[in-house]
Amino acid sequence: MKDLTPQPGDALLIVDLQNDFLPGGSLAVPDGDQVIAPLNRYAETFRQKSLPIFASRDWHPEHHCSFEKQGGPWPPHCIQNTEGADFAQELNLAEATVISKAETEEADAYSAFQGTDLDRQLKACGVRRLFIGGLATDYCVLNTVRDAVKNTYEVILLEDAIRAANVNAGDEARALSEMRNLGCRSATVQDVCLDPLQTNALLTDLYQLTMYKSYLDQEMTRPAVFEFFVRDLPSRRNFLMCAGVEPVLRYLETLRFSPQELDALKRSGRFTDEFLDHLQGFRFTGDVDAMPEGTVFFSNEPVLRITAPMPEAQFVETRVINLLHYSILVASKAARCVLAARGKAHLVDFGLRRAHGAEAGWLAARSAYLAGFDGTATVLAEATDGIPLYGTMAHSYVQAHNSEEEAFREFCRSWPQNNVLLLDTYDVMRATEIVIKLSGKLKKEGIRIRGVRLDSGDMQAQALEVRKRLDEAGLQHIKIFASGNLDEHEIAQYAANSIPVEGFGVGTRLVVSDDAPFLECAYKLQEYDGKPRRKRSTGKATLPGAKQVFRSQDAHGQFTGDHLGLADEKLEGETLLAPMMRGGRRLRPPVSLQAQRTHAARQLQSLPESLRSLDAAEPYPVAVSEALQALTHKVDTQPYASGMGLNGSVFRMIADFFRKAF
Amino acid sequence: MKDLTPQPGDALLIVDLQNDFLPGGSLAVPDGDQVIAPLNRYAETFRQKSLPIFASRDWHPEHHCSFEKQGGPWPPHCIQNTEGADFAQELNLAEATVISKAETEEADAYSAFQGTDLDRQLKACGVRRLFIGGLATDYCVLNTVRDAVKNTYEVILLEDAIRAANVNAGDEARALSEMRNLGCRSATVQDVCLDPLQTNALLTDLYQLTMYKSYLDQEMTRPAVFEFFVRDLPSRRNFLMCAGVEPVLRYLETLRFSPQELDALKRSGRFTDEFLDHLQGFRFTGDVDAMPEGTVFFSNEPVLRITAPMPEAQFVETRVINLLHYSILVASKAARCVLAARGKAHLVDFGLRRAHGAEAGWLAARSAYLAGFDGTATVLAEATDGIPLYGTMAHSYVQAHNSEEEAFREFCRSWPQNNVLLLDTYDVMRATEIVIKLSGKLKKEGIRIRGVRLDSGDMQAQALEVRKRLDEAGLQHIKIFASGNLDEHEIAQYAANSIPVEGFGVGTRLVVSDDAPFLECAYKLQEYDGKPRRKRSTGKATLPGAKQVFRSQDAHGQFTGDHLGLADEKLEGETLLAPMMRGGRRLRPPVSLQAQRTHAARQLQSLPESLRSLDAAEPYPVAVSEALQALTHKVDTQPYASGMGLNGSVFRMIADFFRKAF
Repeated sequence: MKDLTPQPGDALLIVDLQNDFLPGGSLAVPDGDQVIAPLNRYAETFRQKSLPIFASRDWHPEHHCSFEKQGGPWPPHCIQNTEGADFAQELNLAEATVISKAETEEADAYSAFQGTDLDRQLKACGVRRLFIGGLATDYCVLNTVRDAVKNTYEVILLEDAIRAANVNAGDEARALSEMRNLGCRSATVQDVCLDPLQTNALLTDLYQLTMYKSYLDQEMTRPAVFEFFVRDLPSRRNFLMCAGVEPVLRYLETLRFSPQELDALKRSGRFTDEFLDHLQGFRFTGDVDAMPEGTVFFSNEPVLRITAPMPEAQFVETRVINLLHYSILVASKAARCVLAARGKAHLVDFGLRRAHGAEAGWLAARSAYLAGFDGTATVLAEATDGIPLYGTMAHSYVQAHNSEEEAFREFCRSWPQNNVLLLDTYDVMRATEIVIKLSGKLKKEGIRIRGVRLDSGDMQAQALEVRKRLDEAGLQHIKIFASGNLDEHEIAQYAANSIPVEGFGVGTRLVVSDDAPFLECAYKLQEYDGKPRRKRSTGKATLPGAKQVFRSQDAHGQFTGDHLGLADEKLEGETLLAPMMRGGRRLRPPVSLQAQRTHAARQLQSLPESLRSLDAAEPYPVAVSEALQALTHKVDTQPYASGMGLNGSVFRMIADFFRKAF
Repeated sequence: MKDLTPQPGDALLIVDLQNDFLPGGSLAVPDGDQVIAPLNRYAETFRQKSLPIFASRDWHPEHHCSFEKQGGPWPPHCIQNTEGADFAQELNLAEATVISKAETEEADAYSAFQGTDLDRQLKACGVRRLFIGGLATDYCVLNTVRDAVKNTYEVILLEDAIRAANVNAGDEARALSEMRNLGCRSATVQDVCLDPLQTNALLTDLYQLTMYKSYLDQEMTRPAVFEFFVRDLPSRRNFLMCAGVEPVLRYLETLRFSPQELDALKRSGRFTDEFLDHLQGFRFTGDVDAMPEGTVFFSNEPVLRITAPMPEAQFVETRVINLLHYSILVASKAARCVLAARGKAHLVDFGLRRAHGAEAGWLAARSAYLAGFDGTATVLAEATDGIPLYGTMAHSYVQAHNSEEEAFREFCRSWPQNNVLLLDTYDVMRATEIVIKLSGKLKKEGIRIRGVRLDSGDMQAQALEVRKRLDEAGLQHIKIFASGNLDEHEIAQYAANSIPVEGFGVGTRLVVSDDAPFLECAYKLQEYDGKPRRKRSTGKATLPGAKQVFRSQDAHGQFTGDHLGLADEKLEGETLLAPMMRGGRRLRPPVSLQAQRTHAARQLQSLPESLRSLDAAEPYPVAVSEALQALTHKVDTQPYASGMGLNGSVFRMIADFFRKAF
């Protein structure tokens, strides 16, 4: 498509980013300062690539002909050696060449080419294409572009890094139209610079690329089977919940090396052009089998299996783990909260602020909802996934007002149908009295107070007392919400003590999964070119071959036990891994989050009662099929296992393997 | 700029996404399946907005005139009610209207308008603008676009969702050029759909928006002062390290509501058009003061202060916390690893796979490097921040080969100057013998084995034994690296026991900060419209007013104690919060990560020896200035504190506040 990645022959030209043209300056361009952040991004990209950067400036004497007193159209501006002529303080012009123009009283110049040696300097560096941004679109940028085209440069107009003076209405539109007609293409930061949050291919470990090259060198491109699984359940956990499969499928189907990504790899000097050419054509062409999201699973059970040419199957490891691991972590923690609440209260994710970065906050909202939460406070999650939003008010809102009463009243007036008032900024029971007093007054305005929130202290005691006072005042309809360092154990206590709280905001402890902030998970080679493989590292041994999980249920639909077998075995029970992708293509459209949520709810209903406890129960039975045991034994006697003798019988190894599970 | 957000009057038209045109089909378009993922994104966006979607299809009888046997140019394709005529299985056509064309033997039609009632249907829904994607660019898409323009529709060509047949070289380029000349604009998913990883404005909690509206309703737009601080150090921690300031500044200077984001908010039905119009003009116009990244700090010290009109200062809370909290978490953990290693070994971040999402992995690489790590395995971090990359090989690489010797040899041949061989796939000492044997053979090929890696078991004992064997074999130059569940305590043991390991890969425990996966941090209102404010919630009380930290040092540059005072006080010592942004503009270009890393190293050198311990030491002294004590007292007697009486003296409150610190 568009090839807008800067390369040799390109230069960046920043036009007149001077204080007098910025807000507060004598000839300010509206919003002129908004171009600085993108220009810093462009300049950084050009610097990284050692490509030339030029910055033009008006550099006028005190009585310049363009000034009103001299009969010109403008107020005095950009007078040599004044602050007004300085470049914007926050613009990084390191390694840039400065081009001064209109330096004498009689010479005026809108174009950076006019009366300067810019053209000579550009040609001397071999520049053929100019990326142009700066101020103002309809004066100096326009005139510079005209001259650039005249001087045979190809021009890329940086459309997010220009702003117009618009002295006459329509000037901007006319300038843009003229530049387009001159053959300029336009670009934004996303087209030109590497965006860390847009990359897919570079979200990987270096060794994935070095192994990739080595596999190509050896033509080791036969199919490999990798499986993702969790070795051990965290302590006190009885099950985990599958999540993150849809994000993984989206990653795999769109995984490409963009021009900017290839360029970054080239710049590292680490890879040959031949290898980079290969990566340019990269796409994932393999098969994926996985548990549907919301499925409950146990230690050592494969959750997702990838079968693909070795280099592809290996390359995707880092991001596949990154997406599955965190999604499972949150869904599993959320499922415990759901069990703890026993359907008595709404559960809302409040975790974005303390989630580990933006993607974690977003994935957490999704994973928690999938596992049975009722909604989230994260606005993005409604926009992307239709997850219901909940929100109340902050302490700062109360503090900013002259009294709690004023704060509550004004919030209710802004949100007459949707308000939850925060009680604990100063004193919970005083705030409750204010709510009661206010309730009557607001009723006359047609406003109904919907709820109150507790966020600190002994909230169970507070909730009982607040409920009592509200009920006494005839305000049974006002609901009580609680938040603040909650987790599944706290929620269970509220339920056990019948505390009248109708909703919980669960934040930090959910999204960082504080009792188990990581899982002992792995994505391991099971088979290469039809030959089963396994790792025997101390404490990290794996079972070989492509596997399947077979789950049995009793007459009431309760899960009674799983068998871990080979993928091509026919054992009793439901098979948990389903085909999701073949040859890099999905087998069906993306499944809706709502459907996955329904599946998750059914899975939790089918869990044996003992496993629904928040404390460690007798482990769920997972048996290894005879065929898989036999295969493990066989693999250990194969010559490619370094010819190393078997340390004890295969049965001892399998027993060791499942030691923690039984 | 470009207004490509779908709105009433727009429709999506998907041209001929049928099996016969996809790879494996009878008339396959090269890479035709690559348009499906973006088309699903477009369709989802149109569905969310209840805008019409049309999908055209070839629907030929068995002896259609376009087939070769009937004298036409094509092989048989898209025959009615055959699999070849089915739409791509993974394309989600829910709510789409199907338009069949060329349904009789004699009629042929490349255009979706030809012989169909598409035009009538579009006009009936009031459509004026068509977003068109599908197959193939140079046949049915081109002809459909021609007719669309003829029928007076504006056309947006979805350039990432079309592919050409290119039967004759140059067909694609000619088709694209013709469509551009017809006045088509082009767009990609980024232009049309909301990208969860591109959003800034929606990375927030719902209440930030509801409070925002309420502040506007009341015209409460006077300046507010908020400060970010950490209430308590995690147990066993003696200090924290500031990080994440540069990402926060980048967020603030680029924060805008994009058309797609505004559209998502509008769709929720929650906000008035007037409020959304206001948000369209939103930008951050406030001031930021902050500690430079790499600065060591303690509990209750403000790390970053924002002074801005109330609605702005409040709105940015969620993302400011999200970025600072995690960056500080990782930098602080990394600093402990740096102290533990005592300069004896290289430290490399291996954490991306188990970091909580993509951004966490990226921020972790940055924060760890800032704190003194030597590099990372995360490829993206080199591309964006120039952080040195390290990498070895995976167990799967060894397993995939027929022997360890073959694996090691081939990897070294691919990477003759840069190889680290993994020893623990089967048996560490056997692998060591293989390395020794191989070393001599490879030397003859000019290849040098650079290092080996241990990843499981008793690695200290292994390292001693491996070192001994390598040295005996004259291979002193081969370095030993260790990885696998390492943290600062493990690293300290290696250093204490003089274990000959020259580099550590530190992964999971670093990037999830496993001993303290979150901090008790907050972003709290300190002052509104010139009046100091504070919160008195149980256990969560704050000190009022805009504050500064004054740090004293002894003659050797060691930190001797901090004073927490008011921002306008003049106390002894260095002031730690520096001006970073005024009026929404930075005061200088972004600081380089390298400079910040140097600052961090100096900070760690200046830490009192006792605080450099991995275990809890006597807390570093932080005193509250008299002026700040007096202000706290004064605030508690102000009428806006609900008229609530003072619970004990201010001195008791301050003592309680710093209880844990002394």
